This record gives sequence, structure tokens and C-alpha cells, in this order.
Amino acid sequence: MRRKEFKVEQEEELEAFLDEMSFGFLGVIDEQGRPRVIPLNFVYIDGSFYFHGSHAGGKMDAIRKMDKVCFTVADEFALIPSYFTDPQMACPATAYFKSVTAFGTAEIVTDLSEKAAALDKFMKKLQPEGGYDPIDAENPKYRPQLKAVAVVRIVPEEITAKFKFGQNLKEEERSAVISGLEARGGERDAETVEMMKKFCPFHSS
Amino acid sequence: MRRKEFKVEQEEELEAFLDEMSFGFLGVIDEQGRPRVIPLNFVYIDGSFYFHGSHAGGKMDAIRKMDKVCFTVADEFALIPSYFTDPQMACPATAYFKSVTAFGTAEIVTDLSEKAAALDKFMKKLQPEGGYDPIDAENPKYRPQLKAVAVVRIVPEEITAKFKFGQNLKEEERSAVISGLEARGGERDAETVEMMKKFCPFHSS
Repeated sequence: MRRKEFKVEQEEELEAFLDEMSFGFLGVIDEQGRPRVIPLNFVYIDGSFYFHGSHAGGKMDAIRKMDKVCFTVADEFALIPSYFTDPQMACPATAYFKSVTAFGTAEIVTDLSEKAAALDKFMKKLQPEGGYDPIDAENPKYRPQLKAVAVVRIVPEEITAKFKFGQNLKEEERSAVISGLEARGGERDAETVEMMKKFCPFHSS
Repeated sequence: MRRKEFKVEQEEELEAFLDEMSFGFLGVIDEQGRPRVIPLNFVYIDGSFYFHGSHAGGKMDAIRKMDKVCFTVADEFALIPSYFTDPQMACPATAYFKSVTAFGTAEIVTDLSEKAAALDKFMKKLQPEGGYDPIDAENPKYRPQLKAVAVVRIVPEEITAKFKFGQNLKEEERSAVISGLEARGGERDAETVEMMKKFCPFHSS
């Protein structure tokens, strides 16, 4: 697997981000040859992405015809106003975010135990408080449901991560953005400052 | 323009949602013929989507080669745990969300005044508090910057909106989900209940 990473080198960083994010965007080529982007809940297990859905419908038709797909997950941390670093020009206005893009092959999962394991991980991720019988292919109540649901595994051939937190700024601008975020104190501004420090190109170890 | 809408009929509803959302996901077919999904800040002006970027780079290369693109914007309001409606089976677990998907043609904007207008709308949307000189193609400080930035207009041929707030539930399950959300009281749960009531199939006017 080729990994081209902008600023993030650690697999753990990538996994932690993907475990926090509940949904991502699947890119397929539809039956008319057009790109199509579909928002989906997902889990990331041992380097593969899994999602589920109906056996019928355009998504599965597209995958059956053309199994090369893309899956992108992104989280915007903060909009950075231009005036943090420039009193006049609008040009420095930007957004800081994390994004991960995987190119790979979509494979329809047919083994009921693998389907059950993927859906169980789904539940553990999205409903960590429990409140359901564990999903098990041997459970006669789950078995027909497991047959009825389509589960798809995306095996990535390439994963690119972009964690954009002002790494390209000169040190003076960087300080100005940090001061601006601290003064603004928006919901995710403190977290954004943390990320700027964590992924600072001047202080990387 | 064809509009297939799941539950939303009003253009205003669509526009209000798109104006609230700072970023969406562009789907293109890359030079290797693969789908690629790219997160981007955007504005929606008079029925078209605009984004900006560098003239160089894969995104613009892909568009120049194949101008049929997709643009999807999605916002997840709430994860709905299975136990709101079923004490045992995990199957009812789901997510409520709004999403809008546009299929259309990407056109590179070359007119400096149209570029300026699009970028000015960007600033008004993402930096509504101001703090910059208005973007104007006649301003000699902005003019070279406007030439240097690539602006793309996506003219939709089809827009699909899906606002999923339990419209398929039976009335009893619906009440159980509303009670569950009210009892949980998460950050966006009250707003989610509002949406369930707004888009309720039993009470639509």
C-alpha cells in the first residue's frame, strides 16, 4: 500500500481520526460514467473501510460495474479569517482541517461471519454504550438480517492524509493566528491551537 | 434542471442548508480514470456551486479532462441508537442527516469580475464579520491575485436532496425516537426533534 502523507506519518494518528469520525464520502463512477459522491457511515478495520447498505440501488450497481472507488473523510476544525494576519486583503482567509482520502477496490462481503464482525464494529463505534444483543452470524434472529444487508469492504491501494494547520505559515503569521484563535475562543479554537502546535513544522521531532 | 427530492421540495430549504454548510465534497474522475473525492469550501450562488483553488494540481487537471462532476454536502444531526425502538436487535441503529447531491458540469471561470463576485460571496459566507477590503477586479491589489486563483463554477443538471429524519417510521416508533432524543439531550438532539416534526410525513401540509 502506498501512503503519501502531507504532514502525518503515523498510522495511529490516522486510525484515531477515522475512529472519531462517524461518516465519510464514497466516490464511485455511476452507470452513466459520471462520478457520484455518497455520504456514508463507516468503520475502519485493519486498514480497510467497511460500509453497509441495501443490495439494490445505485451504489451497489455502480460498484458491481466498476470496483475502483475513493473514500474521503474530512473534519473542518476552524475557519481562519484573513484579518488574523492581514488587515486589508481577503487572501489569507482559509480553513484548517483534517482529511483522509483512500483509493482502492470495493469488494462485496459475502461471508456472514465477516459481515457480522464488521457490523459489530459499527455498533461498537457508533453506539458504544451498548443496548443490543451482540451481532453474531450464529444467532438465528440476526442470520436473515445479515443475509439481507449488503456489506462492502474497501481495500485501499493508496491512502493520503492532509492535516492542514498552518504548516506553511511564517513564524510571525503563525503566532498571529494562534493569538487570534485564543482571543476568539470559539468552540473548537483551543483544539485547533493544539493541532497547530502538534503539527508545527518548526518543532517537529 | 431535474430535481429529484426525497422529502424536501423547497428551493429555500435547500439554499438555507447550503448557506449554513462551509464545505462539501467534489467528485471527479481523475486522469487514471478513478473516482476522486475532494473536500472543499464552497458557495452556492443562483443555483450554481463555486469553489476556488490552484490552477495547477490534480483537481484542475481532472476537470479539464472530464468536466462532468458531482458535488455533495452532508450534515449528520444525530446517531439514533437501536434501543430507542428495539431492546435487543441492533438493526434499527441509524443516523439522521441532511444531504444534497448535485450532478453537473464544471466550468473554469475566466472573467475577473465573476471571479471577484464569487470570492466576495465566499468571504461574506465564511467571514461574515468583515475585516477585509471588498474583493473587486478593479482594485489593483486584488487584480493579480484574482488572475492567480482558479475559480470553478459547477452548473448542476440534477440536484437530489435527502433529509432523513425518520420519515419511514411507524407512528409508535417515531414517538419512541422523539422521547429517546428528548431524554438523551445531546448537543443537536433538540434540533433533530424539530427536524423530525418539520419533515414528518404524517403532518405535512
